[in-house]
Amino acid sequence: MRTVLIFGAGRSASSLIQYLLAKSAEEQLHLVIADLSMELAQKKTNNHPNATPIALDILNELERQKAIQQADIVISMLPAHLHIEIAKDCILYKKNMVTASYISDEMQALDTVVKENGLLFMNEVGLDPGIDHMSAMKVIDEIKEKGGKMLLFESFCGGLVAPENDTNLWNYKFTWAPRNVVLAGQGGAAKFIQEGTYKYIPYCNVFRRTEFLEVEGFGRFEAYSNRDSLKYRTVYGLEDVLTLYRGTIRRVGFSKAWNMFVQLGMTDDSYTMDGSETMSYRQFTNSFLPYHPTDSVEIKTRLILKIDQDDIMWDKLVELDLFNPNKIVGLKEATPAQILQKILSDSWTLQEQDKDMIVMYHKFGFELNGIKSQIDSKMVSIGENQTYTAMSKTVGLPVAMTTLLILNGKINSKGVQLPIMKEVYQPILKELEEYGIVFKEDNVPYLGYNIDQESV
Amino acid sequence: MRTVLIFGAGRSASSLIQYLLAKSAEEQLHLVIADLSMELAQKKTNNHPNATPIALDILNELERQKAIQQADIVISMLPAHLHIEIAKDCILYKKNMVTASYISDEMQALDTVVKENGLLFMNEVGLDPGIDHMSAMKVIDEIKEKGGKMLLFESFCGGLVAPENDTNLWNYKFTWAPRNVVLAGQGGAAKFIQEGTYKYIPYCNVFRRTEFLEVEGFGRFEAYSNRDSLKYRTVYGLEDVLTLYRGTIRRVGFSKAWNMFVQLGMTDDSYTMDGSETMSYRQFTNSFLPYHPTDSVEIKTRLILKIDQDDIMWDKLVELDLFNPNKIVGLKEATPAQILQKILSDSWTLQEQDKDMIVMYHKFGFELNGIKSQIDSKMVSIGENQTYTAMSKTVGLPVAMTTLLILNGKINSKGVQLPIMKEVYQPILKELEEYGIVFKEDNVPYLGYNIDQESV
Repeated sequence: MRTVLIFGAGRSASSLIQYLLAKSAEEQLHLVIADLSMELAQKKTNNHPNATPIALDILNELERQKAIQQADIVISMLPAHLHIEIAKDCILYKKNMVTASYISDEMQALDTVVKENGLLFMNEVGLDPGIDHMSAMKVIDEIKEKGGKMLLFESFCGGLVAPENDTNLWNYKFTWAPRNVVLAGQGGAAKFIQEGTYKYIPYCNVFRRTEFLEVEGFGRFEAYSNRDSLKYRTVYGLEDVLTLYRGTIRRVGFSKAWNMFVQLGMTDDSYTMDGSETMSYRQFTNSFLPYHPTDSVEIKTRLILKIDQDDIMWDKLVELDLFNPNKIVGLKEATPAQILQKILSDSWTLQEQDKDMIVMYHKFGFELNGIKSQIDSKMVSIGENQTYTAMSKTVGLPVAMTTLLILNGKINSKGVQLPIMKEVYQPILKELEEYGIVFKEDNVPYLGYNIDQESV
Repeated sequence: MRTVLIFGAGRSASSLIQYLLAKSAEEQLHLVIADLSMELAQKKTNNHPNATPIALDILNELERQKAIQQADIVISMLPAHLHIEIAKDCILYKKNMVTASYISDEMQALDTVVKENGLLFMNEVGLDPGIDHMSAMKVIDEIKEKGGKMLLFESFCGGLVAPENDTNLWNYKFTWAPRNVVLAGQGGAAKFIQEGTYKYIPYCNVFRRTEFLEVEGFGRFEAYSNRDSLKYRTVYGLEDVLTLYRGTIRRVGFSKAWNMFVQLGMTDDSYTMDGSETMSYRQFTNSFLPYHPTDSVEIKTRLILKIDQDDIMWDKLVELDLFNPNKIVGLKEATPAQILQKILSDSWTLQEQDKDMIVMYHKFGFELNGIKSQIDSKMVSIGENQTYTAMSKTVGLPVAMTTLLILNGKINSKGVQLPIMKEVYQPILKELEEYGIVFKEDNVPYLGYNIDQESV
């Protein structure tokens, strides 16, 4: 039996563990599932004969090292900042390691020593980052191998609610960390390249400069710019590309409505609000509006945001109960962003029967034999239930598959890596299709960046 | 003869030195004017028999200490961060000190030892901070002495161009540090109190939430919120006041137009732009606009900012030459804010014959004998020329007057102070009137915060 040590039995580990347990007999695997909570670890092992739950505090060096020493390979599904101690132990005991997290500077610094020890630390092998890298590199490599020259790469991803449970006016529910949703777009201007020119969008305009995406069978989506569009320019070998853009997918209308919070200042995380604990939702809203002796909070909101009475924007605000004088925030020394998150959670928390949905969309523009063409590659995945969510599947399955490939000696790369090499993405993208995670690639006319170009 | 040592012979020292030299015979003063540039120091002394220019590097401890040791009192007109070494030497050699700068934490920390040495370090005694403190405390003290209860305090100040030289569409020229103008409003939400409620405005809305101010003989102005409205709540004894607001004065329409830069992202100082050195003004503007294969930069600007063809907003942009493909930025690794400052300086630099103008406006709302009243206090000062500007006069004269009062034993306060005590503000406000710096106080109906209240 080969021992797979998994740190972290949280939400994102469900499908990962399910996959490895299902393969455990045929692949001779024994899973050790380590979590701070023994209950959580036990729940995930579900009394499976090939799994052992253990309670483990990752900061306890002795326990951590003991577990790692006994493993054949180590998976960390813990928050990213906790990977580094595990990584150092993996070098000490010569174990390969797999994570779904972005490569931190600290992790990258281990590259040489990881290589010297003949080890592989595969990171960014979840959904985003993960499946985005793999599905993009597959098409980019194919284009280049045919002698094509890449002109444009745009990549979009979003975690949404499944159409059958899309029941609110925002067409959105929290399917992942709500805090990241509230803070999205902050921390600096979005930067990207369009037709050879660097472009910048400030935070106050990010949610007004969206573009539409059409996915057959699922209708229309929109995307707003990520801050980091140029991050993988070199990694993907796209140094000379004319257009490079990454965005986040939402249902059409979400961004325009979200921009109301931005304009009011409700997404600010830089200061705490006086009296936040006893503040009502209505008082919270009124804090961002001018004083008026007689005008109501509602009237002032409409006036400052220029919302007509019959504008759906208005109904979106009302749906969130932002004007309720009886609902109390109940958070001590909270920032506007924390309070907004609380208010949104009342409306946007996934219910017991709700399923989530992942949408990924890449555009590849290229020139081949003097002809400009474009390939659009799209993937939609819908969750099974609240445990085996689309997010858990798309994050966990590639991690599990990578682990098995490494265990079985199918990957030759060494060092601190991300899944951009053929030996990784080919088998994984193929196997993901068995689990319904399928990219549909279409040849479309090359439009350059601008989707209106046809009509000019 | 009493020796007055003045560090810094820059723009803001002109009126200060002129005042002290004019008084030097009758008051037995000898001025030592120390600047890194001997030429600048010489120019300001103008061969006056009671003045000695010296070239001095403030970071040269020996020279600095020698000069301070020989002085009877020390004035620092240097940038605020350079005061602290001078202050420490002033303690060492037991000299009083005067500055026009905000009290830094480091300066405040000296309070006890300054008092123990029987010394006075008077700070914030220029215009803003300075004349604002004095003119506000005068009225607040008068109201309280009559038994009145303060309800509202609003304070506004702005450095503008004199009406006779107000020749551009923005009704604005740089009369002080341009960088501060470009970065105004950044670094966190504006916070203030209106009718007992804390209010917050995010950066992207600061320039849209202005209020109007009318000054007889000078017409209408507008003001946008400062970030720090609550800073002097305790210092002024206004803990229980219902409305507390500080703002910056501009001519009407400036803020709405400035907001175009904010929305486009041109005021961002957090990143440098690729290729800034060789970039044209037009390319700079285009960096903040979406790509389009055929639409011009002009059309895209109008579209994104929703500017009609006959809107004065459009002419304001054109006047700045923002669409000029031939003017080159010429700044290496510059931020958007630095580039915008460069572009604005082309249009907004004071010309040889231009005069500046300072406008200050306070509103004091109070209840006395059961009746609510309001006093509005206004001051306008216009510069004489490019040397004796309104800014130089309003910053330098109170510094000079304070210095003389201390030298003549007319101020009893000790420690690190700002000019909120009667023994300081009474003689200075009185003497400032001789120099045309006069506050006109009017009794007006108390309107609370909202100026529309009458019409409700």
